Formats: sequence, structure tokens, C-alpha cells
Amino acid sequence: MRAVDIIIKKRDHQELTDAEIEWFIQGYTKGEIPDYQVSAWAMAVLLNGMNERETTSLTMAMATSGELLDLSGVVPYAVDKHSTGGVGDKTTLVVAPLVASCGLAVGKMSGRGLGFSGGTLDKLESIPGYRAELSTEEFLDQLAKIGIVVSGQSKDLAPADGKLYALRDVTGTVQSIPLIASSIMSKKIAAGAQAIVLDVKVGYGAFMQNLEDAQYLARLMVEIARQTGRKAVAYLSDMNQPLGNAVGNAIELKEAIQTLQMKGPEDFLEHCLEIASRMLLLGKIVPTQEEAQKMAMDHLEKGKAWEKFVEWISTQGGDVRTIQDPNLLPLAKKEIKIFAPRSGFIHQIHAKKVGLAAMFLGAGRQKKGDPIDFGVGVLVHKKVGDQVQGNELIFTIYAGENSDIDPVKALLFDALIIKDNPAEKYPLFYGVIE
Amino acid sequence: MRAVDIIIKKRDHQELTDAEIEWFIQGYTKGEIPDYQVSAWAMAVLLNGMNERETTSLTMAMATSGELLDLSGVVPYAVDKHSTGGVGDKTTLVVAPLVASCGLAVGKMSGRGLGFSGGTLDKLESIPGYRAELSTEEFLDQLAKIGIVVSGQSKDLAPADGKLYALRDVTGTVQSIPLIASSIMSKKIAAGAQAIVLDVKVGYGAFMQNLEDAQYLARLMVEIARQTGRKAVAYLSDMNQPLGNAVGNAIELKEAIQTLQMKGPEDFLEHCLEIASRMLLLGKIVPTQEEAQKMAMDHLEKGKAWEKFVEWISTQGGDVRTIQDPNLLPLAKKEIKIFAPRSGFIHQIHAKKVGLAAMFLGAGRQKKGDPIDFGVGVLVHKKVGDQVQGNELIFTIYAGENSDIDPVKALLFDALIIKDNPAEKYPLFYGVIE
Repeated sequence: MRAVDIIIKKRDHQELTDAEIEWFIQGYTKGEIPDYQVSAWAMAVLLNGMNERETTSLTMAMATSGELLDLSGVVPYAVDKHSTGGVGDKTTLVVAPLVASCGLAVGKMSGRGLGFSGGTLDKLESIPGYRAELSTEEFLDQLAKIGIVVSGQSKDLAPADGKLYALRDVTGTVQSIPLIASSIMSKKIAAGAQAIVLDVKVGYGAFMQNLEDAQYLARLMVEIARQTGRKAVAYLSDMNQPLGNAVGNAIELKEAIQTLQMKGPEDFLEHCLEIASRMLLLGKIVPTQEEAQKMAMDHLEKGKAWEKFVEWISTQGGDVRTIQDPNLLPLAKKEIKIFAPRSGFIHQIHAKKVGLAAMFLGAGRQKKGDPIDFGVGVLVHKKVGDQVQGNELIFTIYAGENSDIDPVKALLFDALIIKDNPAEKYPLFYGVIE
Repeated sequence: MRAVDIIIKKRDHQELTDAEIEWFIQGYTKGEIPDYQVSAWAMAVLLNGMNERETTSLTMAMATSGELLDLSGVVPYAVDKHSTGGVGDKTTLVVAPLVASCGLAVGKMSGRGLGFSGGTLDKLESIPGYRAELSTEEFLDQLAKIGIVVSGQSKDLAPADGKLYALRDVTGTVQSIPLIASSIMSKKIAAGAQAIVLDVKVGYGAFMQNLEDAQYLARLMVEIARQTGRKAVAYLSDMNQPLGNAVGNAIELKEAIQTLQMKGPEDFLEHCLEIASRMLLLGKIVPTQEEAQKMAMDHLEKGKAWEKFVEWISTQGGDVRTIQDPNLLPLAKKEIKIFAPRSGFIHQIHAKKVGLAAMFLGAGRQKKGDPIDFGVGVLVHKKVGDQVQGNELIFTIYAGENSDIDPVKALLFDALIIKDNPAEKYPLFYGVIE
């Protein structure tokens, strides 16, 4: 086989065989096929597509390019969750301890934020001492011991995906649904979970801007799971406006803590209950989604999820005092309030623009490796559909002392649309694919 | 500017500005933009295309990536020729000395063969001592002194093209008409000719398999020339069957010598007269194509073209005895004759298959840098449209003593189609674009 012939096949709209994909990915992982051939191939894939079989084959080739984690020696059944990313999405911080408190182990590898989109690890690192990077051994040990662990992606798992993603990032080949699906699923398969709840975000603040693309991605991932002997369920959830109220790092962590204590925003609580109960159902903890919902609610109300959260953070090195008294968490000094410029109904709180505002404050990264400021962010006090009076509080900005606030304000004003006529609320979910 | 944004623009079917193309090619030439970004871009160009303005801009960016040869200090007016390559195409060997003998200087940079397609330099190197690689200074000196020089492409001219072509070769991005056009024209522009006769081959043994593609390429190159202040005329010429009779290196050289002595095959002579007279017309040596044809024929008949050929080869280091007595040129020992398997009319002598047969004999390269055997090749004794009797001689194979002849025979039998019904002759030219 020659790499150039595989590129030419895809360039000419032909299907690649499983053997070709396997050989290509193995060669790339070993450094035998150079970046310049793989990037040309990725562009051909982006423009000409790949079918379900090819995408499954690519997923497995990447999953098996490194270590395949076997969780069965550690826990009876492992259910993972994955969100395609958005603004204010702190779901893992609530769902992981909630599910774990119900007796279903959650060993999750998470990512960092980039651009307008936040990352779970950054939010967790607002807690002084939290160790986001664990060895595989530490990961498995903690999972066995307390049934919950959240750390960064191990470099030993699906190394082909890590290498390919870095290349796609600089060659304009990120936005390909087959490449996105195989990237996500290869990591999930390598991480060893038997079942996965996928949260595919759709809207202004998501990678997928329209429902059709999101549905295609969701269906593709569910099918890949089926083909590879796993079980996946995908939610299509709204990301036109931020999820919950907080957008930042420490302020999102605080909101998660409030939610674990039944004091969080309604939309975010509902979102977490849906995801958590689906995980419980897949993990066969309860036989129906209704019972799962009830169980999850019960564990929240009785403080069991919160206890699990404390145990988790403490085990993973975090300073527990800061979560028991969130006033000890980092918070930027400067507080700027933004009020409604007029009375009416809120038609838009553009998630991407709010995410960018938070990024410009220092909560996110313009490019990989940029430092972030845990204490900055934006609180969004209203939701689309809400009726507001002129001068009612809409946003609170938490900014560093030397921040340039003007572009942040401009973005937030631009994000907000208020009109005279009533606006419909966004649904939390647009559908479930199983 | 960021390279990734230029890739994304082209990926998303947007036009690139002149400044973007110039910046991208400059960055690539300097090594600031890595191969893996350029190959992804090249695949996007191949699949999404480039318009005339973008292609002209790319051509100029590559032409100006290195030295721009100025021939005006050396000769009053320089006319170049370029063939897109084919099987049995030894036109330069006849046309260059013919035109030079008429008083129009020809300073030409040529290439080597690859795959089924031959290269002028390889044919010239059948002559012991011929120096195919000259410095720019030597090139200009010889052009000034005797009005003719043919050497390899200087590495100082259009280095971006050399780098990009090598990358395209291994990334499946050769077959893009805008990239082909800009590659050819950037070298021609850098080489300093004011006018260029382009010979765009079309058919089984050409890069362009159908007339539409060939016309598009031809029109694009003529337009690029116009936009960059040069004059180009493009011929669309047949490459369904080999040009002339000889396919190889020394045997093609012999056929060129025979043609210069008015003893060559008719089709090849006619082809050479057309190209040569167009060059004379563009070079303003004569006012009409008819007079140019007459002048060229006259110079052939009076032996002036042949004298110029001898002067050229001798000046460039070649052993003149071998061209004065071509029996001294290398010729493979084994001679195998292939006869018509039946009587009838010849419907096909598939140029690519004949070219591949010659390549397997050792006349061509399977990959760049392979050594070649100057003495091997195939003589094709008939043309499409000819009526033949069973057992009439069709091919003579000249093979090295240890060659495996079976695949060569198989290719030649496969190349040949004889039927009962008469077959039309191929025209030499399908059109001229100016």
C-alpha cells in the first residue's frame, strides 16, 4: 500500500477499505506516514465525506492506536458521558458525583477550553490543589476506591487521535462530521466505558450550528458505538444561549456547587437530571428513566451527590475548604453590571458572543496553551423568553483589574436582543437518538 | 495573515486575494509555512478549484519566488516552447535547432521523463558527454554565442514551483488544472521568454485524457501569459497514439536526427513544422505562418537545421561522432519483432500502453531518480488508420539482455486493436488557442 494512493482514492470519491484505513492510521501513529500526506487526506475527507463504515473503521483504528483501558477489573459497569462543548456547560461537575452517589462508577477523561468554548478541567482547576492530570494507574485506583475520577485525556489512549487532532487544528480540517465523530468515539472507546451518554450541542454557541448537522453527528456516533459493541444514547441539546447562568471557571464551579445543593438555576438542574438519569438507566441501576429521575433527585435532595462531590475533590487533591465556602474560590475584583437598554422580551442571548466575552476577560484561551484567569467571567441573569424592564440587570461581568472592558461590553450588548413582542423559550433538548 | 485561514477560505469555496496567495507562496518558499498546511491547501484547490485571476496570481507568486531570468541582454527576442508531455514526443530535438537556424534564439529548460512519459533531457543524454545541467551563466553564455541551449530547469528559477510540485507528487494533488497551469507558466515566465508556444497533448498517452480538460488548460495558460505581459499560443495535439515511430531515448534521438535530415516519419515532421513555424511567427522572423512554414522547410531541406543541431550538441559537450553516425549511439542487443495477429485496419495503438512498455524495458522511470537505459525502446511501424496484413511488422522491441520481455509484449498486444472495418486516422491537431 502507498499513502498517496489512499489519498487519491478519497480525493476521487471512492470508499476506503477497513484495511486501508487501519494501515494509514497505524503508519501515521508510528511516524511512517508524514503530516503532509495526512493533512491532504483529511482535506479530501472533509470535502468528499466518509460513510458510516469508513468512519467506524477510522474510529477503531484510532482507538486501537494505543492502550485500550479495561475497566472491568475495577468496576462492574462503566458509563461515560461526553458533551461536544458549549458555553456555560458545567454538566460533568454535577452529573459525575450525582451518578457516582447512586452507585454507578464514573471514570471520565475531560478536556480543556479553547476559543469561546469552556473545558471541564479548567473549571476544576479553579480549586487550589486539584490534580487534573493523573496517570492511568492513579485513574484506575481512584475509580476503584471511590467510584469517581475526572482527569485529562491520557496520552497513551488513542494517540493517533491526539496527533490527528493537532494536525487538523492547523490545516482547516476540524469541521468534518466523520472526523469529529471518530475523534470523540475513539477516545471514548479507548477509555473503556461500556455505555456513553452523548450530549450534542446545537446552536449559536456550539460546534454544530444547525439541527441537521447535529442529528447527523449524533446518529453517526450512536451507530459507531453499536458497531463497536458499545451502547450510546445521544441528546441534542440547546446551545443558542448559555446553559445555566455562569460563564467562566470558578463562577461555573460555584454554580455547580449550588446545583448540587439544590440552589442552582432551573434549566441547568433539569439538564443535569436528564443526563444523569439516562446514565443510571444505561448502567442498569434502575429499570426506567422515571425511576432514574426520581433516584437522582432524591440523591440531590438528601445531599448524597454533594457528599460524593466533596469526597471526589478531596481525593483528587483539591482544597475542600474552597468548595465548602465558595467565597474562598478565586473571584475577579472588578464587578460591572449591564442593564437592559429597554423594556420588552428577550429574543436572544447569543451563546458564542457571551463565550467570546468571557474569553476576552481571560476565562478562555485564544490559542492552545494560553494561561487562563479562573476568577473572571460573566453571569447571565436572564433567559430567552423572559420579560424585562428597562434597566433590569442582565449581565454581571467579573473582570481583572487591568482588563479592557470595552470589547467585552460590546460583545454582550451585541449578544442581547430585546423586542416588544413575546419570545418563545428555547427547549432544553431537541431530541434523543438511541 | 494566518495560513490556516487561507486554507479554510479555499476549503469554503471562497476566492483568495492576490495578497493572500503571494503571502502564502512566499511563506512556503522561505519555509515559514510547513508542508502539511500547503498540502491541505493544495487538496482544497484541487477539489474546489481556482479562477483565472487566482491562477495568474499563483503563477506570478511562484515565478517571482526566485530569480527572474532576463534574456533581453543576450538576445533581442526569445520564444520558448513547452509540451505537456507524451509518448514519442521528441519535438524539441528538431524544433529548437530548426528555429535557431532561422535566426530566432531558443533557450529552453527541459525536464526528465517519469512513468510512461519521456523527457527531452533523457533523450539528449543518450549522447555521450552531453551536459544537461548548466549554470545560469553557462546557459546565457551559450544562448548569446550560438542562439541555442537546452538544459535542465535551474533550481534558482521558480523554487516555489519545484517545492510545491514535489509535495503535490506525494499528496495526490498533481491533477488540478489550475495547479498544472501555474506550475508550467511560472517556470516559463521565470525563464524569461517573451513568447511561448504551448503543445497541450490530449489522449490516452497524455496527462489530459479528454479534449475539454485540455482546452481548459490551454485557455488558462494563454490567459495567464496575457495577464503577465507575455504572448502564448497553445496547440491541442493528439497523444492517443505515439508521435512519430520511436519510443525510447537513443532511438527517439535517431528519429529526430532522421527528421532533421528529411528522412523522418511524416506525422512527426508535420508536427515539428507547425510548432516551429508558430515560433518563428511569434518571434517576428516572418510576417505570416505560410512564410514561416516555407522558411522552416527550406532550412530543413538545405541542411541548416541539421548544422545547427551539430553545433548545439558539440557546444554543449556532446560527442558529435555519435550523432553523425547514429550507429554509435547506444542500442540494446536484443531485438524482438511483433507482427499483426490478424489482417484488418488499425483502430488503436494506445500511447500510454506503448509508453509503459518502454518504461518496463528501462527507457523510463517508475519513480524519480531511477536509472534509465538509453538503448532500449519500442519502434512503432504503423499508425492508426493503416491497413495491415496478418503477420505484418507492427512493433520492434529493443531490450536489454536480461529484460523480462513478457510484460512488454503483453502491453503492446493490449495496445493494439485491429478490426475489419476501416479506421479514421487521428488528426495531428485538434485546435489552436491564441
